[in-house]
Amino acid sequence: MQRAAPQEFDRVLSSMCTEPHPAAREAAERFLATNPGDPATYTEIARLEARVVTELGRLAGLDVPPQSAPPEGASDPDDSQTVDRGPDESESLGGRAVGVDSEGVRDAGAEPHGYVTSGGTEANIQAVRSARERCAVAEPNVVVPESAHFSFTKAADLLNVELRSVPTDADHRADLDGVAAAVDEETVLVVGVAGSTEYGRVDPIPELAAIAHDEGAYCHVDAAWGGFLLPFTDHAWNFAHAGIDSLTIDPHKCGRAAIPAGGLLFRDPEGMDALAVDTPYLESTSQASLTGTRSGAGVASAAAAIEELWPDGYRREYERTDRLAGWLADELRSRDYDVPAVELPIVVADVAPGTFEALRDRGWRLSRTGSGLARIVVMPHVTENGLRSFLADLDDVR
Amino acid sequence: MQRAAPQEFDRVLSSMCTEPHPAAREAAERFLATNPGDPATYTEIARLEARVVTELGRLAGLDVPPQSAPPEGASDPDDSQTVDRGPDESESLGGRAVGVDSEGVRDAGAEPHGYVTSGGTEANIQAVRSARERCAVAEPNVVVPESAHFSFTKAADLLNVELRSVPTDADHRADLDGVAAAVDEETVLVVGVAGSTEYGRVDPIPELAAIAHDEGAYCHVDAAWGGFLLPFTDHAWNFAHAGIDSLTIDPHKCGRAAIPAGGLLFRDPEGMDALAVDTPYLESTSQASLTGTRSGAGVASAAAAIEELWPDGYRREYERTDRLAGWLADELRSRDYDVPAVELPIVVADVAPGTFEALRDRGWRLSRTGSGLARIVVMPHVTENGLRSFLADLDDVR
Repeated sequence: MQRAAPQEFDRVLSSMCTEPHPAAREAAERFLATNPGDPATYTEIARLEARVVTELGRLAGLDVPPQSAPPEGASDPDDSQTVDRGPDESESLGGRAVGVDSEGVRDAGAEPHGYVTSGGTEANIQAVRSARERCAVAEPNVVVPESAHFSFTKAADLLNVELRSVPTDADHRADLDGVAAAVDEETVLVVGVAGSTEYGRVDPIPELAAIAHDEGAYCHVDAAWGGFLLPFTDHAWNFAHAGIDSLTIDPHKCGRAAIPAGGLLFRDPEGMDALAVDTPYLESTSQASLTGTRSGAGVASAAAAIEELWPDGYRREYERTDRLAGWLADELRSRDYDVPAVELPIVVADVAPGTFEALRDRGWRLSRTGSGLARIVVMPHVTENGLRSFLADLDDVR
Repeated sequence: MQRAAPQEFDRVLSSMCTEPHPAAREAAERFLATNPGDPATYTEIARLEARVVTELGRLAGLDVPPQSAPPEGASDPDDSQTVDRGPDESESLGGRAVGVDSEGVRDAGAEPHGYVTSGGTEANIQAVRSARERCAVAEPNVVVPESAHFSFTKAADLLNVELRSVPTDADHRADLDGVAAAVDEETVLVVGVAGSTEYGRVDPIPELAAIAHDEGAYCHVDAAWGGFLLPFTDHAWNFAHAGIDSLTIDPHKCGRAAIPAGGLLFRDPEGMDALAVDTPYLESTSQASLTGTRSGAGVASAAAAIEELWPDGYRREYERTDRLAGWLADELRSRDYDVPAVELPIVVADVAPGTFEALRDRGWRLSRTGSGLARIVVMPHVTENGLRSFLADLDDVR
């Protein structure tokens, strides 16, 4: 085979994945030949997975009792997202090995409430599946804002569930009245997005959870991309801020783990239990993951990245990319592009199709929103120099 | 983080995964930060995936027109598996880049008929899903031999499809009369196993395909584990031997790629088309995989392993493990264990529960069949010295 060269990241503005942190890469390489899907054979990686789940739970507020009511006025995006759940700087990776006994074999009685998935798509599919299993209704439906990731289309298709996609408000967030109108007694799940794929928007999560629970449905938050950024904002997005039931948070996106390392968390063990199937010829008794054999590289690299970066490293990276995105938005506006307010580090601009193609021809990896706007995701590999070079090319071709 | 040590393989007799070939490991490490799920951003890995699909297709007989009738008497396991589809020694990795244009972006009009999955479970789920989509019946069912992998239970659960599990014959192969009786007009898929998880058995594939097609159902072969062994046997198992419609073949099992690298192949493009969902904000137009972000490491390592080992390296490994499994079976029989005939390199023996536990206490990773028999998978990492050491421990503890 001709020796193929992997992707360089210097012109990648389209991806929600990034270069793994060096510690994550090293761990991935070390655990390349392990399978957390077979925990009785591969005991060490099973232990690491339990640690990752514990740490993801901590990031997502699972060690704090839920609030009984949503924070006052949290649906107003301008001034009311007052819940400060920034991490305590003194927190570090604990040794709490949830659900793994001394042999590294999961004890069915103390299963961690989540697992490391192949990515956000698997996590979202499994959240829908768990809700469908736990709500025994004849014709289940799932209500999502139209900003939800296309993995929910996959989930609905797979699971024979009706997908009710509700138009978003003028600022691309879930419209609460629209969602409330779409929900009925056959609704098994209401989805909120915390860091949407196109605009980086955070939906009013506490209100969505309240709407879901009023109808006896579950509430899931997709923080696949936003989950490692939001702890450093004052958004209300996680288990501690709202009565949500499950959450997607992907180490292989802003968590800087190697692919594949997604994350799915449930508040209650019943969420995972609903996914379990029996596993003859594995010495563990059941398996809740969608896939069978799974990547130990992803799990180990997630553990290493979180150990290395939580919380200060992630905070620094959030602050850097947040500043950079704001700067890029200003630069584009100064060139008369229409650029919506930046909430999390994604910048959207109305770049004309010819300009877009000319930039792609120069090697820039750009992508478009469903409505054709150019979209730039300011990930850890994106630098100010890179963006200056991008702007110079933009000035050149437009 | 305390530096965790990954699994050593010297006592692993339970896994269907193994140490990746050094070339596969190197390629996995090189492509760790790529995502074939986003082919317009990560163009090089998309090209490699197309090559892997082409090569898997060649291994599985997709470059040969289907036979109009099953080979005579192929259902008789003793003497009639006369179809010799051993590879031509002169074959090598070709440059046929199916379905990828010069930009590495998949052209919907020339999609390769398959993709690199996260593993056999995803491939089996997707085969069931594709059949369900293509057969518009009200209450779909899938007919499997009871030897089928538990991923079909997952698939049925996910997809709201009835699973009809048919008892196997005395030698643990699909029972044709039983399967024929279970199939009806609501059957969308009949599954045959080519290398079963417990006994390594190969079902009568041509006959199963005929039963399926007589009722208008599709036929899928699960060769997840067996697919890199069977080309060196005279079994009738693949697209060239029988009118099957889809097939699972996993590079990360006997193909010696790194996890995650499974494989799903369809004879016709409609098989893949039935899986596709639209993908806004990716520059490619649709996505057929179950997951979204996918592992470039798995894809690259599969390409490297096949380049390195097909066909001579795989043939040598098949012959070595086949001999070793036969020898182990004889050794166990000489100790008065009941050991069924070895078809592919899995050895099953009636080791008493106390002995089994004592061996696990000595660090041997052993697993059991559903009926409690010890099961030893003779993978590339298993050596004669290792098995002698295992037998010595067995003699010591029983």
